[in-house]
Amino acid sequence: MIDQELVNLLRKKYQIVFNDLSLLQAALTHSSYANEHRELHLSDYERLEFLGDAVLELNVSEYIYKKFPHLSEGQLTKLRADIVCTASFSQFSREVGFPPYIKLGNGEEKAGARNRNTLLEDVFEAFNGALYLDQGNQAVEKFLRQTVYNHIDAGEFSDENDFKTELQEELQTQGDVDIDYLVVSQSASEENPSFTVQLIVNGIQLTTGTGHSKKAAEQQAAQRQLLKIHHDKYQNPATKS
Amino acid sequence: MIDQELVNLLRKKYQIVFNDLSLLQAALTHSSYANEHRELHLSDYERLEFLGDAVLELNVSEYIYKKFPHLSEGQLTKLRADIVCTASFSQFSREVGFPPYIKLGNGEEKAGARNRNTLLEDVFEAFNGALYLDQGNQAVEKFLRQTVYNHIDAGEFSDENDFKTELQEELQTQGDVDIDYLVVSQSASEENPSFTVQLIVNGIQLTTGTGHSKKAAEQQAAQRQLLKIHHDKYQNPATKS
Repeated sequence: MIDQELVNLLRKKYQIVFNDLSLLQAALTHSSYANEHRELHLSDYERLEFLGDAVLELNVSEYIYKKFPHLSEGQLTKLRADIVCTASFSQFSREVGFPPYIKLGNGEEKAGARNRNTLLEDVFEAFNGALYLDQGNQAVEKFLRQTVYNHIDAGEFSDENDFKTELQEELQTQGDVDIDYLVVSQSASEENPSFTVQLIVNGIQLTTGTGHSKKAAEQQAAQRQLLKIHHDKYQNPATKS
Repeated sequence: MIDQELVNLLRKKYQIVFNDLSLLQAALTHSSYANEHRELHLSDYERLEFLGDAVLELNVSEYIYKKFPHLSEGQLTKLRADIVCTASFSQFSREVGFPPYIKLGNGEEKAGARNRNTLLEDVFEAFNGALYLDQGNQAVEKFLRQTVYNHIDAGEFSDENDFKTELQEELQTQGDVDIDYLVVSQSASEENPSFTVQLIVNGIQLTTGTGHSKKAAEQQAAQRQLLKIHHDKYQNPATKS
């Protein structure tokens, strides 16, 4: 029943080999397919999606809790909501390459469900639920590093002004500061623009940041400087003062 | 700073000894107290609450996913919402004995925050977040067995009709059935009533259930029979057909 191509993809791209292939199968099976093939006694992904939703919520929460020791509970909640949402999870589902392997009933197939964001989100959640049951949370963490955390690290989720504002507030506690972001390079390509900016505080060159827009590059530079400042807290986030 | 009585309580009642006491301290510290004592550089519980909320969500989800292999995703979601809520978590917080050890600012103390359900819920979540960071998820699981899962096992959360309906649907797939719940004992006490019922299917005595009401006792009997029926699936929930 399981598509060997999917098994190969997971092994080559993510070094994931399921012990219980029926879990992987269920994670990719929509209820419409299970209903059309009752004789096969297939499980659909719905219960795994319930579990996987919570697996993702905890892992993403822990990752950003530790990565951003300077963010308040409210800011963490907002950031998590940007990551744990249909738009992101459906995109991750596409990046992994799940769509061609989803088992759909004929009606749903004709209705275009294979490209429906909510369904792709469900499959991403169900897959993580299946992986959690099959191999525990460490395997999930490793998978998320390659599929979700890389996007967080690239600064794709946070409100573009958050880190700049945060850095300004942080630096101002030590008196007046002069904060500048200087564009130091800019690609010529209009299709795929790239900016690099340098953060300059009171005339001293600090971190640089790169992004598809000036704003994104500035945000990355500010985020990097915040991480430097909070390096000690990052080592031991709970004792931040 | 940490109240030695709390440390003793956690050790005696739950065999929990924190490695990093600052985590335990933060979990019990309201922002109003941290603000009133800035010179102490205390962390409040807000970030730990953010993390603990997700820790509880996953653990409860996993527990009911495995315990109730016959429940659909919709039923699991409803059951989880009954467990993971202010009313329950504040009650667990009281049962553990957190209230006297919460650090509150004067204003919040006078406003009665120590007995406020939302605050007690926050502390329960923050404590689980702190325990997770200090000792990992296994320690959280152990703590939840003594504080949350015991309540789930006692059937305190589910809609009283769920298990009866579920059992009826399950049994009817094998043809017509005659299902009865017979009260076999009833306590005389009006203040603390107790009922025991016996489930009888097609004249055969099956499980019994006990509860403070006839309905609750029936539900427990039905739940126990469902667990028997699904014992195989319970051993390997993902492969249920």
